Order: sequence, then C-alpha cells, then structure tokens
Amino acid sequence: MKLYTSYLSNAAYRVRIALDLKNLPYEPEYVLLSKDTGEDQSPEYLGINPLGMVPTLIDGHRVYRQSLSILEYLEDVYPVPSILPGSSRDRERIRSLSLVIATDIEPLTNFRIQAYMNDKLSLNDEQCAQWNRHWIHKGLQALEKLMEDNPATSSFCHGDLPTMADICLVSQVHGYEQQGWDLNQYPTVARIYQQCMNLSAFSSTAPQYQPDAQVQT
Amino acid sequence: MKLYTSYLSNAAYRVRIALDLKNLPYEPEYVLLSKDTGEDQSPEYLGINPLGMVPTLIDGHRVYRQSLSILEYLEDVYPVPSILPGSSRDRERIRSLSLVIATDIEPLTNFRIQAYMNDKLSLNDEQCAQWNRHWIHKGLQALEKLMEDNPATSSFCHGDLPTMADICLVSQVHGYEQQGWDLNQYPTVARIYQQCMNLSAFSSTAPQYQPDAQVQT
Repeated sequence: MKLYTSYLSNAAYRVRIALDLKNLPYEPEYVLLSKDTGEDQSPEYLGINPLGMVPTLIDGHRVYRQSLSILEYLEDVYPVPSILPGSSRDRERIRSLSLVIATDIEPLTNFRIQAYMNDKLSLNDEQCAQWNRHWIHKGLQALEKLMEDNPATSSFCHGDLPTMADICLVSQVHGYEQQGWDLNQYPTVARIYQQCMNLSAFSSTAPQYQPDAQVQT
Repeated sequence: MKLYTSYLSNAAYRVRIALDLKNLPYEPEYVLLSKDTGEDQSPEYLGINPLGMVPTLIDGHRVYRQSLSILEYLEDVYPVPSILPGSSRDRERIRSLSLVIATDIEPLTNFRIQAYMNDKLSLNDEQCAQWNRHWIHKGLQALEKLMEDNPATSSFCHGDLPTMADICLVSQVHGYEQQGWDLNQYPTVARIYQQCMNLSAFSSTAPQYQPDAQVQT
C-alpha cells in the first residue's frame, strides 16, 4: 500500500494510526500542502486525488480518499485486530463518537476555514481564535458528555482496546495538547488521550515525528 | 422504533429516507429546534440526547444519535434492501461520497454556523451568503468530479440502486433545489437528484411534507 500523507493533516494522522494498529506496512508519500488551503493543487497530485486533499491510500490498483471510509475499508479487508469490534450496537457507538470529531470539530477548524476567515472575511486573529475555541470546546464537551457516565467507556472510548473512536479522538486532541490547551475540563477525553499515547501506534505516528515535519519546521 | 426528527434538519431527513427505503415502520416525534442554534436545549430533550441535536433514533431500549452511524446501524441490523451493497471497494466508494456531504458541506452551512456568524462575528447577510455559496459550490464540485467520469456511477451515485451516498446527496441538495439554485453546473449531481426524487422514499420524506413544517411555516 502507498499512503499520501502530510504532518499538517489530522485526517492523514488517523490513517497512519489505523495502519500501524493493524500492522499493515505501507510506503509513505509526503504531500506538500499549502498552509493556506490545506490542499495540494499541483497537476501531479490532482491526477491522484482530484480534490487535492490528503490522505489518499492506494491499495492494489484502487485509490481511496476519505479518512473515515479508508478506516472502514481497512476494517473490512484486514479485520484483525479490529478497530470496530463488538455488536451492531457497539459499532454504532464507536462510529457515533468518531463522527463527533469528524463532522462537528475537524471541518470547522482546519486550514481552509482559517484561510477563508483571514482572506475573505478579513477577521482578525482574535476572532479566528475565538471561533476555534468555541467549536473545539463544544465538540470536546459533547464527547465528554457521551462518555463520562457511560459504562461502555473503559480504558478507551469504547471498551478496553483502541477503536476508530480513539483514532479520531487522538488525531484531533493531539494538536490541542501540543498547543498547551487545558484538557482537564474534559477529564474522560484527557484520560483516554493519555492512555492512547502510551501505545506506539498512536505516538510514533504523531505529526511531529513525520519526516515532512522535520524538513518544514 | 421511534425517531426524533425535525423538518429543519438535513441529518434527520437522511434517516427518514433510510427507514423508508428499508420499509421500517417508526413513530415520529417532532422536535422543536431553535432556528438560531439548530438545537433543542429543553431539559426533556437533553435527557434523550445530551447534545440537543436531531436525529435521535430509539430502537428497543437503545438510543442512537448521529445520522451516518444510524444509517450504518440500520444496515447492520436490517440489511435488506441494502444501502451499502457490493464489495469492500464498493462500500468504500459509497461511504466516501457520503462523507463529502457529511463532512465537507453540511457542518459548514447549518443553522448553528449561521447563528454564530450573525451573532458573534456580526457578519452581514451577503457575507453569510457568500460563505454558504463558497462551501456548497466546493463540495458539490468535488462530488461532481468524483462521479462524472466514473463508470461505477450509473442511475445513482454508485450503481443502479439507491445507497447511503444518494441519501446524503438528496438530504443536502434538496434545500438548494427548493431555494432555486442552478444545479446545471453539477450535471451528474442534478441528474441523480432527480432520479432519487422519482422514488417515494426520497420525495415523501422531504422536509416540506413533514407535519412539523406544516405547522411552523
């Protein structure tokens, strides 16, 4: 397999964790994303991914382009170890927690949103920072509410092994922890984040250890 | 089954379509969403869904709260007729097209974003409208690119029967069509939308035919 990845993309981080958890070897290709758009609009890369976004996964002759559907695909084809274990109800909860991150936080706070706010709306840095804090807090608070009193949440978001929900949680919370956010207001989220980061699949694949981060920062 | 729904929610429309496609009877409960926040923050509803959002599906004693994970759950438990048919690769493509809608358009253009832009950022109507046009165009253009030349796209987004991708497409495009948008710049999207709306599962569940829409408009 080949993975088009970038240290700047939370979505690419999700796929790196999943591939590592499933012990699947892959060849990384580092995509140079514009810090303004979060995209690579070069003709070469658009030939591989017409949306210019990462991650892109190549498995055999097929191309896969959205992080959550890539995780589902990996689970379908390489089911052991599972990142969507249990019954239909278990899987629903795991997917539902994943989607709080993937639909309610990430799309509102990524590079392309920041760029639009600066360039098209002429918002100042404090207004952009307030926007980010608002949606990140709302999302993490939601995640905390859905986990804090739920007996199905244990060492990890759902049960005692890492799942797709932990992958999504770490891919998003990692950046906030690096920026010095106070995560203590979300104690369950913070505890699970630390638990995950004790595992090499989560820590060794982190953005700051990627070769493209070393070159560019 | 009981579905907490609102004519104001695209995500609830997705679940209504899926339940109808799968011929699953349900009891609707109409939730009164604030047009400012897209949420119902009443203590009664927060007791059912601590996020205050719709849809919420009750099946047996269990509560399910995110539209895409509800669709996956329905597919798991009531697999015929399928909304995620085919091989792992087919399912990946269906999920991937669904996510273009669910992560790249819907979260950026719903009520709570509009409310934040008006109240917290004091943006004027034209700036809000430009924001919406920008992200909707970018998302629909992406969907068009991923389908226009792909032989797997046929009468519907993927193949000759409606899938989760068509459900997501219609739930989003329906509002634009009602508002008089010119969809001709996305000919594949527009064609599939019309094809879906010929089916009662998509048309009879549309927002404007919901009893709560009749009362409130």
